[in-house]
Amino acid sequence: MTRPTLTGTPDAVPTVELDELLDGGDLELLDRWLAQADVVEIADELARLPREARAVPFRLLARDRALEVFELLDPSLQQELLEGLRETNVRQLFEEMDPDDRARLTEEMPAKVARRLLAGLSPNERQLTATLLGYTEDSAGRLMSPEVASLRAGMTVADALERLRRIGRSAETIYALPVTDDHRRLVGALGLRDLVLADPATLIGDLMDTDVFSARVDADQEVVARLMREADLLALPIVDGEDRLVGIVTVDDAMEVLEEEETEDLARAGGAEPLGRPYLATSVVQLARSRIVWLIVFIAAGAITVNVMAAFEATLEAVVTLALFVPLVIGTSGNTGAQSATTITRALAVNEVRVADLVPVVVRESSTGLVLGAALAAISFGPISLLVDARIATVVCLTLVAGCTLASLVGSVLPLAARRIGVDPAVMSVPLITALVDASGLVVYFLIARIVLGL
Amino acid sequence: MTRPTLTGTPDAVPTVELDELLDGGDLELLDRWLAQADVVEIADELARLPREARAVPFRLLARDRALEVFELLDPSLQQELLEGLRETNVRQLFEEMDPDDRARLTEEMPAKVARRLLAGLSPNERQLTATLLGYTEDSAGRLMSPEVASLRAGMTVADALERLRRIGRSAETIYALPVTDDHRRLVGALGLRDLVLADPATLIGDLMDTDVFSARVDADQEVVARLMREADLLALPIVDGEDRLVGIVTVDDAMEVLEEEETEDLARAGGAEPLGRPYLATSVVQLARSRIVWLIVFIAAGAITVNVMAAFEATLEAVVTLALFVPLVIGTSGNTGAQSATTITRALAVNEVRVADLVPVVVRESSTGLVLGAALAAISFGPISLLVDARIATVVCLTLVAGCTLASLVGSVLPLAARRIGVDPAVMSVPLITALVDASGLVVYFLIARIVLGL
Repeated sequence: MTRPTLTGTPDAVPTVELDELLDGGDLELLDRWLAQADVVEIADELARLPREARAVPFRLLARDRALEVFELLDPSLQQELLEGLRETNVRQLFEEMDPDDRARLTEEMPAKVARRLLAGLSPNERQLTATLLGYTEDSAGRLMSPEVASLRAGMTVADALERLRRIGRSAETIYALPVTDDHRRLVGALGLRDLVLADPATLIGDLMDTDVFSARVDADQEVVARLMREADLLALPIVDGEDRLVGIVTVDDAMEVLEEEETEDLARAGGAEPLGRPYLATSVVQLARSRIVWLIVFIAAGAITVNVMAAFEATLEAVVTLALFVPLVIGTSGNTGAQSATTITRALAVNEVRVADLVPVVVRESSTGLVLGAALAAISFGPISLLVDARIATVVCLTLVAGCTLASLVGSVLPLAARRIGVDPAVMSVPLITALVDASGLVVYFLIARIVLGL
Repeated sequence: MTRPTLTGTPDAVPTVELDELLDGGDLELLDRWLAQADVVEIADELARLPREARAVPFRLLARDRALEVFELLDPSLQQELLEGLRETNVRQLFEEMDPDDRARLTEEMPAKVARRLLAGLSPNERQLTATLLGYTEDSAGRLMSPEVASLRAGMTVADALERLRRIGRSAETIYALPVTDDHRRLVGALGLRDLVLADPATLIGDLMDTDVFSARVDADQEVVARLMREADLLALPIVDGEDRLVGIVTVDDAMEVLEEEETEDLARAGGAEPLGRPYLATSVVQLARSRIVWLIVFIAAGAITVNVMAAFEATLEAVVTLALFVPLVIGTSGNTGAQSATTITRALAVNEVRVADLVPVVVRESSTGLVLGAALAAISFGPISLLVDARIATVVCLTLVAGCTLASLVGSVLPLAARRIGVDPAVMSVPLITALVDASGLVVYFLIARIVLGL
């Protein structure tokens, strides 16, 4: 049987509603659906179910499919599922996972549960997991699999294929094959493709590429993943401080890191912390918690605007019309700042811009802000002159020019400053930039008003 | 020689400043750097150079490395580079590219140049490119390579390996091997790993997995790429309307699609169109153009706030103190709306939420908005009562509760509505949501003020 083929637009992906099957309480129907659905579909549907409803369909899965589904789930859901299952089942499941998946799960597990589970493993499996756990969070060491199939330069192609037949089943991948010397130091690499296409008598040392990418166990996972994406690598050998091969990172794990990273950047662009779990499996309390800290920061920044407005209360009382344009002028400079901030944050993330590029970035962004402010002023002057008067229009339009320039400057400098001091530039979110430029935009507005209106 | 190993944090990536070498004018030094730098580094550095300076270092590259660097460049930079190079070189470069990379480049090329380049290709290469060009933009057909190595169910493993040795060099990948029947219909697939580890006499039909993922040529590239990421696929067979195998999409191309998509989503989250080219290679005019349209939309939405303020001018004149809190109350509801919008947009993008989930999403988001508004009101009431008075504090705090609830509702419904009508939910950017909730927040504020203050 071939799976249903993917066609057309996103919503055309075939979907089955597991919750409807569960609501019906018809276990036989559920069983049939589980048998024919693919593992990705099942994992998706489990993530959409309330916590207490997940164990039943999961228990109905065949043992090998259960593991596949389990490894596709979010670590937070894996943990909840483990808690809900009987202990013997838990241990079996844990034993059969890949060491790197298991390590990622263990990170999020209470120490007691992790210890009990590790105790249930075979010595070999336990050592693999423990080795992984020795590396710091977000390091390549945590992402890699230690089950790496490596070759030696002195082997022939025939020897190498023979070795792969012997060890290939347990290795994480055999598509990228690192080559090591007598001290397990990395000296080259080749792809399984080269091996298969080569004459059996060729020496690996003559066939291998000596110019290979690798990363240290302590390298940042995101940097490793971006390198793999940029250089189109299926796998990346990981080495220790002495350049000895200790593991391998595969492209599927790298893609997952990038997806998490990008979910995080997008959440922060909106001024929230990433949920770390599928949306429909997140409670209102968890949602509120991911947002409240930033809202308190924003409202504290908003308090500055109240003070600025209070400082210019006399000006406002003299010309109440000025108040009408307050939301417009602060909104516009806030938006311009947000555009700069998201552009620069992304350029930093994909390594198109570095901290050392401060001067060209700031020149480019403030020029862009000036151009945009001037364009908006040109569009707005006529309507405001007609509807209110030319003097107010002058005040608003001068503020647009100055405000947009200032906002682009602030919006481009802050992400670079964050990166410089080692903070994720994405925390310079749109709402934070908006809050910061609001107060300065207001000061500019009222100062221009005082001058133009002679107050 | 092994490449320098990647270590530590992003800024620790070894970098060489190509522009400094160029400024020095020392071609020999430049030549040496180009010989030892890796292709990713060279491509990065080229992207950071001004347009006219790129041809020199590119021409200094060895022919095979030049092609590698070229394929790593953005299509927009590839085009500029092509224009800057002599025609014979252009044609040679073009001939040696993979058909799928060539098609992506051709999309962005003036028809005349594209035709001239196609004319210079060998008949086989030309046909491959033309076939690709027949598919609509952003379809799997454009992303796939038609150079797919496929097997037949009746072959033995030994036959299959023999066939791969014959055709494997020109295939896009041999790690994922689709299996077809007499009519070229897809009936299964297997990995090169299974082939290498199997007994040579085994039949492909017995070894292959019949439960394989595939996608139609007209499927959306982003959907295809997300499926590959979720199901950890190295390659995905592409079939036509009659289920006949026509090509294959590899994971490196899928990752590139996702990166572009995420750059687009992040740009839109900040209210700008994606640049489609590296930041430092983008002029101020191009930057301003990517942002001006959205700014005009925002300022038009901002005009509504001016009208709302004008409608309540009498209320404002009576109690000028109310004006002081305008930036704070609209800023806070704008931020809450932005948090909801980015959360839901991302959940839609990674398929955690579907359009059909409207009711649970809206219930969850408005509850979250209510909780957040109440928390912010509780924090703010004391300080405002002390600094101004309890009646103004009551007005501001009631507005925070109502405004946050309303904003979360709007921020969650709009991305779902966009997806429903077939528009990218990411266009419901933070600035757009902010602009939309500003006006309604103001109405709520002044209505509550009139009631509480008895105006």
